[in-house]
Parts: sequence; structure tokens; C-alpha cells
Amino acid sequence: MKIGIYGYGNVGKGVDLAIKQNNDMELVGIFTKRDNVKSVTGAKVYKIDELTNFTNDIDVLIICSGSATELPVITPELAKSFNVVDSFDTHAKILEHYKNVDKVAKENNHIAFISGGWDPGMFSLMRLYASVILPNSNTYTFWGNGISQGHSDALRHIEGVKDARQYTVPIDEAVKKVEDGLNPTLSQNEKHKRVCFVVLEEGADKNKIENEIKNMPNYFLGYDVEINFITQDELNKNHSGFPHAGLVASTGSTGLSNEHKHMIEYKLKLDSNPEFTANILVSFARAIYKMKNEGQVGCKTAFDIRPKDMSCLDYEEVLKML
Amino acid sequence: MKIGIYGYGNVGKGVDLAIKQNNDMELVGIFTKRDNVKSVTGAKVYKIDELTNFTNDIDVLIICSGSATELPVITPELAKSFNVVDSFDTHAKILEHYKNVDKVAKENNHIAFISGGWDPGMFSLMRLYASVILPNSNTYTFWGNGISQGHSDALRHIEGVKDARQYTVPIDEAVKKVEDGLNPTLSQNEKHKRVCFVVLEEGADKNKIENEIKNMPNYFLGYDVEINFITQDELNKNHSGFPHAGLVASTGSTGLSNEHKHMIEYKLKLDSNPEFTANILVSFARAIYKMKNEGQVGCKTAFDIRPKDMSCLDYEEVLKML
Repeated sequence: MKIGIYGYGNVGKGVDLAIKQNNDMELVGIFTKRDNVKSVTGAKVYKIDELTNFTNDIDVLIICSGSATELPVITPELAKSFNVVDSFDTHAKILEHYKNVDKVAKENNHIAFISGGWDPGMFSLMRLYASVILPNSNTYTFWGNGISQGHSDALRHIEGVKDARQYTVPIDEAVKKVEDGLNPTLSQNEKHKRVCFVVLEEGADKNKIENEIKNMPNYFLGYDVEINFITQDELNKNHSGFPHAGLVASTGSTGLSNEHKHMIEYKLKLDSNPEFTANILVSFARAIYKMKNEGQVGCKTAFDIRPKDMSCLDYEEVLKML
Repeated sequence: MKIGIYGYGNVGKGVDLAIKQNNDMELVGIFTKRDNVKSVTGAKVYKIDELTNFTNDIDVLIICSGSATELPVITPELAKSFNVVDSFDTHAKILEHYKNVDKVAKENNHIAFISGGWDPGMFSLMRLYASVILPNSNTYTFWGNGISQGHSDALRHIEGVKDARQYTVPIDEAVKKVEDGLNPTLSQNEKHKRVCFVVLEEGADKNKIENEIKNMPNYFLGYDVEINFITQDELNKNHSGFPHAGLVASTGSTGLSNEHKHMIEYKLKLDSNPEFTANILVSFARAIYKMKNEGQVGCKTAFDIRPKDMSCLDYEEVLKML
């Protein structure tokens, strides 16, 4: 399979690295808006406007742009000329994005895969599996302990903040209630607390900033917020990575009077959120490549993918080994 | 969907109950060799030889017989006349069983699903997902804490043993080594210990039996074995259920020099192993019913199933909710 990478942020770099782990794939090139971009693996880097020369050379183009404003425009546009994969993660807008991409892909005889990653993506699959196996189950998703890009950005936009990172941390008591099968009703702020590491500009007003953080609607207001003021050196040293983690926990019951309780958990602990996401994108890219070769077109999500199509092994090997 | 149940042991009863949880399914009847069988839900019970009258009335027949000797014969035989689902779980013989069932199903224009359940089944899927997302990962499967039917049977066959149950228990230190990403090499007896609850016949020789258990090849020899002698009343009171549990844990890495470690865990904790297994069988039955309506025939496993086909919801609802 010949892969192209569109966009070279942290996830794009992750895809570059991921392709090295998969012998059935070859990286044709990285396409970026920016100047002076270098591939971490030494792959070829092109400017975006050169992409039109590659329509016959790329089997699947993996789009590594931002969900907020870029992907809703870029994915349908690129699906005109390529089979594409993206990691669109604005949960509330996935159906809309799906319809837009599906239309263009079908019109142009391409296949597209949207919303790959671990949430949405693998976590969506786990929510589905739990809901079909245990129709009366309740499913809870916890994120963290890990870096939230959105919340870190929000902190950095505050006047007087030089740099910042925000960790989303699941609240142990909430997880325990779920695991104990108590089927609690939990809002986001009852499931997660927010731990901030903030570097101040010189002369900034600590109390004012602390107050501003704690009262920021949507992001911090209503949450248990812990704020740690640290130096830039400390931040660089201890908080420069992208660790993350997550848990999908489901509890349900069977039996004549629901007397038998069952718990299903899917748990991730990641040193690098973007690299793990990239590895997932690459395995979905393999699946849609196979599906395209069977003649399938249009937009697909994790729910459409036969697990065997994500593997480079042949079917009999999979049956024997797994 | 109209479902039939073939065989009415613990899993068969579980399927009977599971159908009650799924509004898109209707139980046509239970077919059994035994006399005087009553359905736990009040469903109709027929003798096996009446099954031939139902070829047009059953969309999917769920076969709930034993893997050791029955399913290898029964599943191919029934695939001549029905779309079938089974829970064949002799891991080493799945490929052989697959080929036998595939041949008959194709010849007779039927679809068949084999090896549904949690292992093989959901655990197989989790091993596949982990192996494709993290190609360099190691995956470990732990079973328990829970009742092993095979080992309980082995105990009951010992002379002087009146009744017995055996719990397979994962060894904490082994789980910890895996979760810590140490990629240990672990044989089954380094992953699991075996806890036995044994009721003796009157006058039986305790020491002799203890010795016989600890030295039983394949089952107990080489394992850390704990033997508890109890009364039949205690066994009936405290060990009459079928709890089980299990864990598929994978660790792998990404990055230019594999500097980022990742852990994926899928964990089950079940009050009733057969009922949970039955619920899985029912959701795979839904999937093959949909696939048959699309014109697919032959033998399928969990690796062939698009997750959306396991759900009774329509695709847009799934996208919105999950």
C-alpha cells in the first residue's frame, strides 16, 4: 500500500513513524503547508499544491489536520481525488461530517474513513460491543490521566500565562462506583478533575489568573481544579510529552430477574497520544484499502470495518494465532 | 429474526434468556435430546427429530452443545439445513472446524458463525485489534478468577471425589509484570494458579486424593494448586454459580526508538459465564442474519463481522450515540 500524509503536526509525525512498523506499507510523501518541514524518518516532504501530481501514486491519503475547522473542509475536498482517512473527533458533528464525506467519496468513486483514533474510534467500538452484548448496560467513558490539548490551549490564552499544560484526571470514587455496578448518574465534572501546570509571565497576578481559570465556563467552571504554578524549565522537563489514558467501562446484567451482573472494561495507558492515534489511523487505512480493492466506495467508520481487514496477516493465520 | 436453540444446557438457557433482552428477536423453539426439559422463560420445547419441520421457520439456529465431541459433528450437519451459530472453543482446532463448516454452509447456501463467546470470540477480537494497532506488541491472556468446567470435571472423575469445583486464578505478580510493560515470558502455570473445592465420598483417602490432584498432568501438574476440602452443603451454598473473569493485556511501543510505551487492556468480570457467552452468541446471530440477507454464505468468525451488524440500531443512530 502506498500512503500519503497530509499535514505534519504530532499525529502526522506519528503516522510517519507508524508506517515504519508496517511492512506492507510504503510512505510516498508528506504534504504540508509549512516551509522547512523535515520528516522524522527521512521521508520526502512536498508542498500541498504538489499533491495533484500524486493522484495515481497514493492508495490512501491520511489527513492529519485539526478537527475544529480544518477537517470539515479538507476531508471532503481531498476525497474528490484520493481515498482518505481522517481522525475527525468533534463527537457531536460526526454524522454531519460523515454525510458530507460520503457524498463526495461516492461521486468520485473513492472510499473514505473518518473519525479514526481511540475516541472516537476504538472507544466507539467498545461502546458498541458492550451495548450489543449487554443490551441493558450502562457505559461510562473516562479520559485521563493525560494531557488535554484543548484545555492546555485555553490556559495559554489567558493574559499573564506564558505556558501551560492541563491534565484531565478521572476521579477514583467515580470509577469505583461504576466498577461496583452502581450505575451512577455522573456529569463530566463528577467523573473528571482538572490539574493545571501554569508558567506565569513576569509580574503576572497569580490570584487573578487562578480565579480566571477556576471560573472559565465549559472548560473549568464546576470542576475540581488543581492549579500548580511552575517554572518554564520544570514544564519543559516534566510536562512536554503527550501522555494520555482512558477507560470505557460497562456494567449490565443477565438472568431471569437480572440477578447476574457483568462488567466489561477497555483501558488504555499511552505514553504518546498522537503516536497511538496515528497507529490506529494506519490500521484503518489498511482496511479501507482492502475494501476499495473489493469495489467498496463511500464513507466508512470503525463500525463498518471487519476486524480481519485491519490485519496484514492472511485469514487462516489470524484464525490459528488469535 | 426467528431464532432456534439447539441444546439446552447452561449456555442454551442463557440464549433463551438473552432473546428476551433483544426486541428484534423471537424464539421459535428449543430443541433437545433430553426428556422433560422446561424453558426458563416458558418457550416451546421440542425433541431434536422435530427440527426438520422447522427449516423454513428459523432464521438462525444457535447451537449450544459441547465443543469437545459434539460441535465438530453437529455444526456441519446442521449447517446443511440452517444458518447456524456455535461457540466452538477448542482453540487448536478452530481452523479445522472452520473449514468443515465453511464447505457445508457454502454447498447449502447457508451462513454459519463459529467460535462465538468471550474466548474465543471477544478476546480474539481484542488480540487482533492490539496486534494491528501496535505491531510490535506482546499480548497476554489471563483467565479468572472463575470456574473452569474442564478442571472441575477432571476433579469429579477422581475416585473418592463426590463433587468439586475448580477456580482458575490469575497470579497477581504475573499480571503486574505484564502491566508494567516488562514483556515477560510466561507459561500457563506462571500466569494462573488453581484453587480447588472438593467434597469427599465417605471414607475417601484425603492424602491420596490431594496427591492425585497435584500430579494430574495437563490439568494440575506444574501449577500452584490450593485444595480445600469442604462439605456438599458448603459447595452448594458458596460454589454453585458460574462466575468467571478474564483479561487481555497488550503492551507495545511507538516512536523513533520505541521510546513511547502503550498498554491496552480488555477486562471482563462475569457473574455468569454461560449467560454472558449466550448474550455474545445472540449478537453474532444478528450479524449473520443481516449478512445472509445481503447474500453472504459460508463460515464466518468474529474477525469477519462489521461491528454495526451486531447492533439492532440503524447506522445513523449508532454514529450519533457511540
